Amino acid sequence: MSIRVSWRYSLNLTGTIVKWLAVPLCFPLLVALYYSEPVAPFLVTMGVTVLFGWLLEQLDGDDRLGPREALLMVSLTWLFVGLLCAIPFVVAGRGTIAHPINAAFEAMSGITTTGATVLREFDIHSRSIMMWRQLTQWLGGLGILILATAILSQLSVGGARLMETETQYDSVDKLTPRIEDTARLIGKLYLGFTVATIAVLYGLYLGGLAPNMHLYNAVAHAFTSVSTAGFSTEPLSIEAFAPIVHWVLIVVMFLGSTSFVLIYFVLKGNIERLRNSEEFRFYLGTVLVFSGLIVSILLLKENPTGTGFPETFRQSVFNVVSIITTTGYANANFDLWSPFAKHLLFMCMFLGGMAGSTTCSIKSLRWLVVFKAFRRDLFTVIHPEAIRPIRLSGTTVDEDTIRDIYSYTLIAVVGVFFVTVLIVVNGARTGLYDIALGFSEFDALGAAASTFLNIGPAFGAAGPYGTYDVFSMSTKAAMVAIMWIGRIEIIPVLVLFTRSFWQS
Amino acid sequence: MSIRVSWRYSLNLTGTIVKWLAVPLCFPLLVALYYSEPVAPFLVTMGVTVLFGWLLEQLDGDDRLGPREALLMVSLTWLFVGLLCAIPFVVAGRGTIAHPINAAFEAMSGITTTGATVLREFDIHSRSIMMWRQLTQWLGGLGILILATAILSQLSVGGARLMETETQYDSVDKLTPRIEDTARLIGKLYLGFTVATIAVLYGLYLGGLAPNMHLYNAVAHAFTSVSTAGFSTEPLSIEAFAPIVHWVLIVVMFLGSTSFVLIYFVLKGNIERLRNSEEFRFYLGTVLVFSGLIVSILLLKENPTGTGFPETFRQSVFNVVSIITTTGYANANFDLWSPFAKHLLFMCMFLGGMAGSTTCSIKSLRWLVVFKAFRRDLFTVIHPEAIRPIRLSGTTVDEDTIRDIYSYTLIAVVGVFFVTVLIVVNGARTGLYDIALGFSEFDALGAAASTFLNIGPAFGAAGPYGTYDVFSMSTKAAMVAIMWIGRIEIIPVLVLFTRSFWQS
Ligand SMILES: [K+]
Ligand SMILES: [K+]
Repeated sequence: MSIRVSWRYSLNLTGTIVKWLAVPLCFPLLVALYYSEPVAPFLVTMGVTVLFGWLLEQLDGDDRLGPREALLMVSLTWLFVGLLCAIPFVVAGRGTIAHPINAAFEAMSGITTTGATVLREFDIHSRSIMMWRQLTQWLGGLGILILATAILSQLSVGGARLMETETQYDSVDKLTPRIEDTARLIGKLYLGFTVATIAVLYGLYLGGLAPNMHLYNAVAHAFTSVSTAGFSTEPLSIEAFAPIVHWVLIVVMFLGSTSFVLIYFVLKGNIERLRNSEEFRFYLGTVLVFSGLIVSILLLKENPTGTGFPETFRQSVFNVVSIITTTGYANANFDLWSPFAKHLLFMCMFLGGMAGSTTCSIKSLRWLVVFKAFRRDLFTVIHPEAIRPIRLSGTTVDEDTIRDIYSYTLIAVVGVFFVTVLIVVNGARTGLYDIALGFSEFDALGAAASTFLNIGPAFGAAGPYGTYDVFSMSTKAAMVAIMWIGRIEIIPVLVLFTRSFWQS
Repeated sequence: MSIRVSWRYSLNLTGTIVKWLAVPLCFPLLVALYYSEPVAPFLVTMGVTVLFGWLLEQLDGDDRLGPREALLMVSLTWLFVGLLCAIPFVVAGRGTIAHPINAAFEAMSGITTTGATVLREFDIHSRSIMMWRQLTQWLGGLGILILATAILSQLSVGGARLMETETQYDSVDKLTPRIEDTARLIGKLYLGFTVATIAVLYGLYLGGLAPNMHLYNAVAHAFTSVSTAGFSTEPLSIEAFAPIVHWVLIVVMFLGSTSFVLIYFVLKGNIERLRNSEEFRFYLGTVLVFSGLIVSILLLKENPTGTGFPETFRQSVFNVVSIITTTGYANANFDLWSPFAKHLLFMCMFLGGMAGSTTCSIKSLRWLVVFKAFRRDLFTVIHPEAIRPIRLSGTTVDEDTIRDIYSYTLIAVVGVFFVTVLIVVNGARTGLYDIALGFSEFDALGAAASTFLNIGPAFGAAGPYGTYDVFSMSTKAAMVAIMWIGRIEIIPVLVLFTRSFWQS
């Protein structure tokens, strides 16, 4: 049918991307110079990165970028970049992340915008290393935006084509159609959004409203909020900051999980598009419903993490938004909440924000289609003769896309269970239950969902104020792969294991 | 589009079926007479049943059986019959099942062939009551066979139409096409299978190979093995019997979960059909793979429930077959097995046997289609231009059916999680964790899967030698509904809650 996959060309392209990683590495280098901290971690990584990228670029094959080459390039880029980002942690040689597997975990958690951490102590690391940790997430967010809007939407990965119809909603007014232009446009938007967030956070500091949100922290948290990624420089995450910061970050996380294409149109004055977007309404609806449920539970029963309505309300909304947008910040130890509240948060993990944003997980677009299709199925059982196409924001959704979305959702849900079994079984083998006393099946489910769907914190020992360092090296190594596979929408990695991928 | 649902006619038909329940009630009545036990439980139930059925029959509406009328009739029949079957337990007034909610639980668990029990003591009940408990499962198995082969296959419920293509495999050699004929044929096969099982079990007793498998026990266990339902008259379930009985029941459970249509053809000498059935190979494959995995685990680590290869092998195969076929017998307390082995059994709960049998759960037909479709999806990501229809045993599967199957599988998996939340949250509210110390999230998941997918035993307090009586009355009442909804393939009940069902 077609010729063999041009893996040399894929590697060649991957090499070019990897080489470019040297540029953002200048940022922590400057931070290190400013604070008179060791620069070796970044210089070494720059050297390795450029050399490795250059070596890959020496491979030349057919200059042809078909679906297979694109999928291979995407998979390898995330894997290589994730592992290369670990080098500074190893070279710096401090704390848990000096160990190569821990460093790989932290870096992959960064680049996949997961936000799960194996840190035990926050204050032993240099400011440049901590900033690098934040920056990996910002880079990961940028990467995923370009991947989602410019690449995956061109391939039929889990119904990603549907987002394209959102993009090309109106043929007259369509977003710049060529891949590179889309990428450049989205990239500018992302950069502007980041700068605006820094300005607001630092403005709160200057205005005396957020005492510890100095420029370093403002930049650090802008990096991980616009990317809905969740690392913090503070062991108490966002609880370390004033309430006003929580509300600002709620807005930033919410916007970070909104389709950037939609944001682009709204900024251009096309409010109609926002009003027409069923996906946006659905996404907003999930945030409101789950916030409402959790605030009710915490008010009806005693709130173990705070007192009074304002605090309970802020904690409920913040943590729901944090989980639904897949950011993973915390402003309260929600692991102490009641089983009902915790199960609701667990459900939120599967939701995700809008397609075409930095969000992870299954995403509201897919759930909306699943619900519509399921409701249609119930209708056609009663009226077998009826033909009812599914419409989304006024456009008909192709039946193949519906099937792809069902299949993606099912594989994601079943995948979380398989990861749970891995965590439990390997945990039992490696003494997890002796280290993390009382580690439960629910905690394992949480950790599985949190890594595979790239949320960040889970429950129990891996809770918002806990650490993934409780897991054994082999489990953490597996989690590196799990975060990687989950972030690039599962399918690109799975196809690499099919025979037809490598056949001509 | 069409006129209003003729609910009066649905109720009228339900009434006729309910009235017929008086006939099987004669069986425990005869048992009671034989053992000189109270006959009131059965006479009262007969009276109520006939009266209730007669009252329903007084409703007359449009004499029209469309999809809606059929779905309503199916839902109500299972609900009413399930509740009516509880009356003997209440009238007999002994033990836990004297309480109406417990009685409803036990009866619904019977009629849905679930096999979860709230009994605490087995020896305080009369032999006729215990036989009635077994008989409800046999009736439930017969009901589901007729429902699956004759009714659901005519409607598009979760891809059930696909089974019809299995039925009408070859247009020349097709199974008797009319509903009533199909029902009669399948019913005869089921009766013959039951009689043969009784003969073999009682033969083992007469031959001195199974000392306690006297005629009463032979009949009682034939009733619940051919229906893959799982109630036993012994508190130790099948562990109470000689090893040869275990092997006989492995065969009976396996056959009970094999498509009765396929069995019919094989009995007619059409071995070719067996060889061509991909679903049969898949079903057999799941049994072999999971048995192999569990026997390996139990041999590598110490088997906490037995010693030596023969016993470990028998326990592994028996419990895997019991769970995959959704029977729910046990011949070992598998709750003591390692986390890995228990998680494998939990996965088995989602499998189920072949469509068109007495099995419950998602069934091998659906998983096979899901796997094939997912593999195809991976292929079309690489080759977007390719058109690859899914073929099953040589026949092309319609794309709508694939979508229905994805949707059914997803709703079943997600449904189990919602039931888990219900068990945990209501459990926390009603003191479950004080009664069942150490009741874990895994135990809750197990109980949820076991009731919603109609397996029977779960883990922990609700394990094979435990009792569902640890749950509160409200949880048990919810489980009555959960077993009911799960058994009739979810959709028929869900459609009742859509507006379009009741609209004209
Ligand atoms: K995250
Ligand atoms: K069962």
